Amino acid sequence: MKKIYRAHILFTRERTRFEVLENGYVAVDADGRVTGVAADLASLDAEDAEVVDFGDRLLIPAMNDLHVHAPQYRNQGIAMDMELLPWLQNYTLPEEMKYADTAYAERMYRRFVRDLWRVGTMRTCTFASVHTESTRVLMRLFQEAGMGALVGKVGMNRNCPEGLVESVEEMVRGYESLINSQFTIHNSQSLVRPIITPRFIPSCSPEMLRACGELAAKYQLPVQSHLSENKAEIALVQKLEPESTCYGDAYDRYGLFGQTPTVMAHCVFTEGEEIALMKRRGVMVAHCPTSNLNVTTGIAPIRQFLDEGLRVGFGSDISGGHDLSIFRVMVYAIQMSKLHYQRDHARSFLTLSEAFWMATKSAGSFFGRVGSFEPGYEFDALVIDDRELNHDHYSLLERLERFIYLGDDRQIERRFCRGKEIGEPEWRC
Amino acid sequence: MKKIYRAHILFTRERTRFEVLENGYVAVDADGRVTGVAADLASLDAEDAEVVDFGDRLLIPAMNDLHVHAPQYRNQGIAMDMELLPWLQNYTLPEEMKYADTAYAERMYRRFVRDLWRVGTMRTCTFASVHTESTRVLMRLFQEAGMGALVGKVGMNRNCPEGLVESVEEMVRGYESLINSQFTIHNSQSLVRPIITPRFIPSCSPEMLRACGELAAKYQLPVQSHLSENKAEIALVQKLEPESTCYGDAYDRYGLFGQTPTVMAHCVFTEGEEIALMKRRGVMVAHCPTSNLNVTTGIAPIRQFLDEGLRVGFGSDISGGHDLSIFRVMVYAIQMSKLHYQRDHARSFLTLSEAFWMATKSAGSFFGRVGSFEPGYEFDALVIDDRELNHDHYSLLERLERFIYLGDDRQIERRFCRGKEIGEPEWRC
Repeated sequence: MKKIYRAHILFTRERTRFEVLENGYVAVDADGRVTGVAADLASLDAEDAEVVDFGDRLLIPAMNDLHVHAPQYRNQGIAMDMELLPWLQNYTLPEEMKYADTAYAERMYRRFVRDLWRVGTMRTCTFASVHTESTRVLMRLFQEAGMGALVGKVGMNRNCPEGLVESVEEMVRGYESLINSQFTIHNSQSLVRPIITPRFIPSCSPEMLRACGELAAKYQLPVQSHLSENKAEIALVQKLEPESTCYGDAYDRYGLFGQTPTVMAHCVFTEGEEIALMKRRGVMVAHCPTSNLNVTTGIAPIRQFLDEGLRVGFGSDISGGHDLSIFRVMVYAIQMSKLHYQRDHARSFLTLSEAFWMATKSAGSFFGRVGSFEPGYEFDALVIDDRELNHDHYSLLERLERFIYLGDDRQIERRFCRGKEIGEPEWRC
Repeated sequence: MKKIYRAHILFTRERTRFEVLENGYVAVDADGRVTGVAADLASLDAEDAEVVDFGDRLLIPAMNDLHVHAPQYRNQGIAMDMELLPWLQNYTLPEEMKYADTAYAERMYRRFVRDLWRVGTMRTCTFASVHTESTRVLMRLFQEAGMGALVGKVGMNRNCPEGLVESVEEMVRGYESLINSQFTIHNSQSLVRPIITPRFIPSCSPEMLRACGELAAKYQLPVQSHLSENKAEIALVQKLEPESTCYGDAYDRYGLFGQTPTVMAHCVFTEGEEIALMKRRGVMVAHCPTSNLNVTTGIAPIRQFLDEGLRVGFGSDISGGHDLSIFRVMVYAIQMSKLHYQRDHARSFLTLSEAFWMATKSAGSFFGRVGSFEPGYEFDALVIDDRELNHDHYSLLERLERFIYLGDDRQIERRFCRGKEIGEPEWRC
């Protein structure tokens, strides 16, 4: 049945400004798509629609997380004093090995999905581990929760602990088993789908990269990986793939750079030719400012990416990043852009509407028509009860800004994904 | 009556490492001072003591906030897209003018003090506004709450809106009225005391600065102000005080730089002679990383300050800063130090124990013997119930790190200030 929601509606049709509808209305059809958004009910086709009034609350698009490592969830917020290599060797990779055990995966992934729900992230593009069965567990949990996810069984077969190595054949078999289970390519509309996930060039042999590209092409699946996160990594890629003209080109040669929808995390040192290639191929940047800070990689030049027309969204990148909330990642992205601005006033810092647009409409585009309340968009939304923060006379935009800067999951009262209200997962965590 | 608390006790006697007492004990006398801390009860003089068992909880020193603007609390988390000057002119100074109205002050300051309580800050060094009576309201509220505070009626008489100008005579009269009310110098042990607070050199005429220095000396009161936050400000100070050899020296010439205990906020561009002068005078740095980011001032060289032996603590600097929690400020301080490290690997980034030490024992020293559980320290403490975060096998240090990085006020179960348990203020907010 068609529904019409009444609330203070805020969203970003364009990057540079908010649409603000005080006591506005948004109509959603039975398929979960927005059919109209308006300042008054009369402008909408309200016949046969149930009108739900959220009163003085804010209604905004839900968050999208474009880069996160589900099997690192246990390690969120620990070992932050370590440098990258000991952190990987002593914390991250040993933790991922535990996911050979599906019971452990079930326990940890329940908490991960539950907490994504809490912080208002309704679509997630996530790395799982190499383990096919644990990856299946994660996909099932997202499906049970009713939340959207692209879930990547990780491909890796070199420069990594033996316990995490898989042969190319095993990897292909694992992927096809996930593809041909309930999460099938025949249902490209499924909220939960596999995504081809070579860990990154240094972890994958040429044969594995080639197989990944072939899987993406054969099953028309999206691709995710890491790109240009730090200089030593970039030099290593150049050594491993001497014919490549840049890191992105190394992926491109295997069909992993925009041949199907592709998102690349970090891009801290992406420049020149790599930017041009990403633009040409529509490759999306998953900007992970908290991770870049914690892991001391640097600050991605997001203003430049936007100016050049690259697609950009945000990633929490747990556990390099420490905070699962994309609202907090948004704040960090603005703050990091201010450091660029400080050095060079020609690079204006990100405004709130730009950060919000990246987190919603821009990132959402990786999942389909997601992240806006324009007609045709899937209704992914959060109802924000900010009474606690709204103790004086604040404008609607100030209320939203305060929620983003000061708020947390306590103010998120309701969550919708593709039109359906999503309650807290009922698993024991 | 003497009390002994049993819990997992963590604190920093030294900057470089945590003291960790699993199921340890801390004894507190009737005056609220620690008399002993030990791994076992037998090592403490437990006769006549009531033993209180906090079970599996963490017991840590409470937080200290060395720089915050109470009358900017309404503006927390808004107008973050603005640059410094329009932000001051359109948001900050007009808001401070409202504090001519003590009823408005009462309403806002209640919320401010209640929220400091929530985030576990038991000692605060805060700017109020120029208004004597509203400043008195703030002092009364801290006193009613039982929380420690140094509260500064602000001195300013140039380069500011007329509504915030006070004559030197009015300022002195106002200060003396606060000093001679219930908050008297005769009780230097009072938890709530005035602090001499010239806004900063550009806002105060030489006569006002001289009067501030005289007040500090006459009543032996501490001093707070801003120092070397941005380059335009430093150039202006040089112009206004042409005989000064550095910004710090300009304060020093008026008796406002360590003649009595002094804390200076920001110090982003403090170097050379200014560092030497601060060290000689024991002037404390209030490092405000969130504010420095939001207001695009730069990143203070904290590693250098520590290496040179300067005293450093943290400030939330609401509303330049956006987060009242010193735990979050701690995380930002570590992250900002990683940006320094990235540029110059000789400047190692701040470790968790260093940040914790700065927030507790170092910052606490501005309030007396505060911020540690060593014998003789005032017992300012937080009981952390981190069950929600402690869902797997974590060490005690990992539990603390997770609370600092992921936690919030929901995990702070009890608060103590000078030995007394502090409940939530009962005011209507």
